[in-house]
Amino acid sequence: MRMHPVEARRRFAEASVARLATVSPGGQPHLVPIVFAVDGDVVYTAVDDKPKTTRALRRLANIAENPQVALLVDHYDVDWTQLWWARADGIAEVVDDAARAIDLLVRRYPPYLARRPPGPAIAISVARWSGWLADGEPSISS
Amino acid sequence: MRMHPVEARRRFAEASVARLATVSPGGQPHLVPIVFAVDGDVVYTAVDDKPKTTRALRRLANIAENPQVALLVDHYDVDWTQLWWARADGIAEVVDDAARAIDLLVRRYPPYLARRPPGPAIAISVARWSGWLADGEPSISS
Repeated sequence: MRMHPVEARRRFAEASVARLATVSPGGQPHLVPIVFAVDGDVVYTAVDDKPKTTRALRRLANIAENPQVALLVDHYDVDWTQLWWARADGIAEVVDDAARAIDLLVRRYPPYLARRPPGPAIAISVARWSGWLADGEPSISS
Repeated sequence: MRMHPVEARRRFAEASVARLATVSPGGQPHLVPIVFAVDGDVVYTAVDDKPKTTRALRRLANIAENPQVALLVDHYDVDWTQLWWARADGIAEVVDDAARAIDLLVRRYPPYLARRPPGPAIAISVARWSGWLADGEPSISS
């Protein structure tokens, strides 16, 4: 059954990992797991790569051409009555002045304390929070 | 560090859940978790929804317009030296005669024994298996 957007945002925000989908100019989707922080209706994530290679990252190149992105958090269980997922659809922007985003990330992820990501950050303005929750029937859906 | 394609396929095939990204004609990515079975370089998944609503599912509508899809399996751990992910990029096809695909799925997922999915199935011909594995540095990447 559908999840209320407020509940979808709550569950999303508490997760440790999400998947970011971007799209190339040729219509090829690109998927990568990300760590993130939610601030209201904005999701922040950072790029950890060595600065030299950062600008060539597919996700950044895709966002520059098409800022439409999707983010997904999901919970799997062998008991399918426990399944749920939460999704954020929005518009991404690459943020060079990433201090605030990175502060939020460092608070959530201890490994970032030891090695603060250099940025840039990606800020996703979420236009739609949605989700799905198993209703007792053994179905995985939507 | 990069994962060999053979290792990426092996890890992918053993996972219970993947995320499927499709793209709308307007370039909006759509993300949903799926259960699946790997047979060589083909990934199968099925649609569980009630038949009436099935054909309107976003993923099927997207695939009909643009068969390019991406699939992602990932492993998260608070110890970032344990992180890895595996990705399959390929071309999707909606398969109405889904018996073989569904047989493979039923073998992997006991809940499908109790309620065999009606189909259709989606068959993704994987053109590229790739992956990433933490190399001891606390980085989440690529």
